Amino acid sequence: MSSLDEAGVIDIIARGEPPRHDVLLGIGDDAAVVKPPPGKLMVLAVDTLNEGIHFPASIAPCDLGHRAVAVNLSDLAAMGATPAWALLSLSMPAADADWVNGFVAGARRLATRHDLAIVGGDTVRGPLSVCMHVVGFVEPERYLARGNARPGDAVFVTGHPGDASAGLSLLQSGESGNRLTDRFLRPQPRTDIGCALGGVASAAIDISDGLVTDLRRMASASGVRLVIELRDLPLSDVLVELQGADAALAHALAGGDDYELCFTVEPGRETLLGGMAADWECGITRIGRVEEGEGLVLLQDGQPTQLSSLREWRHFPKAHS
Amino acid sequence: MSSLDEAGVIDIIARGEPPRHDVLLGIGDDAAVVKPPPGKLMVLAVDTLNEGIHFPASIAPCDLGHRAVAVNLSDLAAMGATPAWALLSLSMPAADADWVNGFVAGARRLATRHDLAIVGGDTVRGPLSVCMHVVGFVEPERYLARGNARPGDAVFVTGHPGDASAGLSLLQSGESGNRLTDRFLRPQPRTDIGCALGGVASAAIDISDGLVTDLRRMASASGVRLVIELRDLPLSDVLVELQGADAALAHALAGGDDYELCFTVEPGRETLLGGMAADWECGITRIGRVEEGEGLVLLQDGQPTQLSSLREWRHFPKAHS
Repeated sequence: MSSLDEAGVIDIIARGEPPRHDVLLGIGDDAAVVKPPPGKLMVLAVDTLNEGIHFPASIAPCDLGHRAVAVNLSDLAAMGATPAWALLSLSMPAADADWVNGFVAGARRLATRHDLAIVGGDTVRGPLSVCMHVVGFVEPERYLARGNARPGDAVFVTGHPGDASAGLSLLQSGESGNRLTDRFLRPQPRTDIGCALGGVASAAIDISDGLVTDLRRMASASGVRLVIELRDLPLSDVLVELQGADAALAHALAGGDDYELCFTVEPGRETLLGGMAADWECGITRIGRVEEGEGLVLLQDGQPTQLSSLREWRHFPKAHS
Repeated sequence: MSSLDEAGVIDIIARGEPPRHDVLLGIGDDAAVVKPPPGKLMVLAVDTLNEGIHFPASIAPCDLGHRAVAVNLSDLAAMGATPAWALLSLSMPAADADWVNGFVAGARRLATRHDLAIVGGDTVRGPLSVCMHVVGFVEPERYLARGNARPGDAVFVTGHPGDASAGLSLLQSGESGNRLTDRFLRPQPRTDIGCALGGVASAAIDISDGLVTDLRRMASASGVRLVIELRDLPLSDVLVELQGADAALAHALAGGDDYELCFTVEPGRETLLGGMAADWECGITRIGRVEEGEGLVLLQDGQPTQLSSLREWRHFPKAHS
């Protein structure tokens, strides 16, 4: 175990950073200087991961590095944006060389796959926390907002919501090495899908906080009602097999950490979407529709059902005073 | 004391945010969407402030909000960049409405003065920590880097280094309400000066970590030697009066937290600089010169002197194993 000073940490982060031609000044100055492509809009996102809140203390450093990049790329994907540059702020109680090397390897592998360059950051002493900021770009007419769902649109989701949440609960029980734990430890941001959805979907959101919480946000931002058919939720076989049908549904609705995209498409574009989706390995599933009204309605075999038995994940518990 | 959920925190941050015409989508989506001005470069910086490391636990929330904005604007100033947009990630053990209102008021007051719009962010549970990311822009030929100091250049500093560090030590002894404690609690980023220096200065750095540490970084990045005359350091009268001459010098050299700019200017541009500086309230002082060689040399009445008795501030102590 070898300890690093701040410059040592920065050296590891800077070492071998694959260049993008649009980075004029990268790691090592007061700030980074980059050249945005002409005519594009910039999309800015930030996500912080705190030990014990957003990841278990036992997480491997390379998985944490992957996660920090994934959750931010997921925000860009939800906007239909192409990733470009990232800044990384790393708080650590102490800087161990092996840990930092592992973290950076995990972060860089995913970043490179999505052409995201880590161009700067900050290394500070403190409780373990990773704050990453990403910048992407998008054509002016192609960015996706959560507030543009319209009555008549269909609601879709990518992949298999619930897997990551179930994976976390398995990890907490000491299990590992199955598809569910992998889904928690290595979320795959839907970058290509998000970019392709620009100009096709009407609205999009990433379901990092759980399908119910994030669909309610979309309904509220769009001023519409979202109606979801529970039987249409794409629960994975492994999720149902390992957790049972009821728990699988609870994970899918309220679990969070999925980093899948939920999006709406107007009826005339569903055929276009279907053609595009044939290439998407994770798949997409139509799970409901947009109506006039407000809020979220869950249908069980066509009948509205209550959420009261389901746990929702919130950062702060609401005060009851 | 009233507790907030995540949406409540976001509401306070979003409320009354003064619009910039180039913000297409602000707080409340997965990411913000902004429109960069054509032909400009983007400058990206991030700074994290952790309780007990970067600010005392006793700090007032409005002072912490001010500080988070100030330290980031200082990074932009050191690059010669005009502030534009900020993202704020706030970790808190619990979200008290009065605290969040105070923090946001302090942050917004300084941000608005510098035309910086807080366009998004993240609110998470965790130990008190503020991570702010800022984006500014600069003309392609006018950005300042720390690596462009050249032999023959003169070295200047803005304001009065040492005041903030002495102010922190006074605060730690229970004093407050004098000019030094104000300088620690309310650092003033040198935004206008930084922007004006673009195309005039050869290199610049902000001296957030102390003059000695940051001048060494500039010397290393530029591949030159910096020679500083200690008697030319602009110690403020109040600093010398309250701390004595020796402690005043130590604070100025090694104290940190000043957020002044240190910059170099080639000889032919000193007259131009002098004319510009007449308008700068904080003043600038010539403190040394750039030579061939490496490292930092401190001269006391023309003779090199040692730093061994001075404490330098580092995030991580270097391992001695």
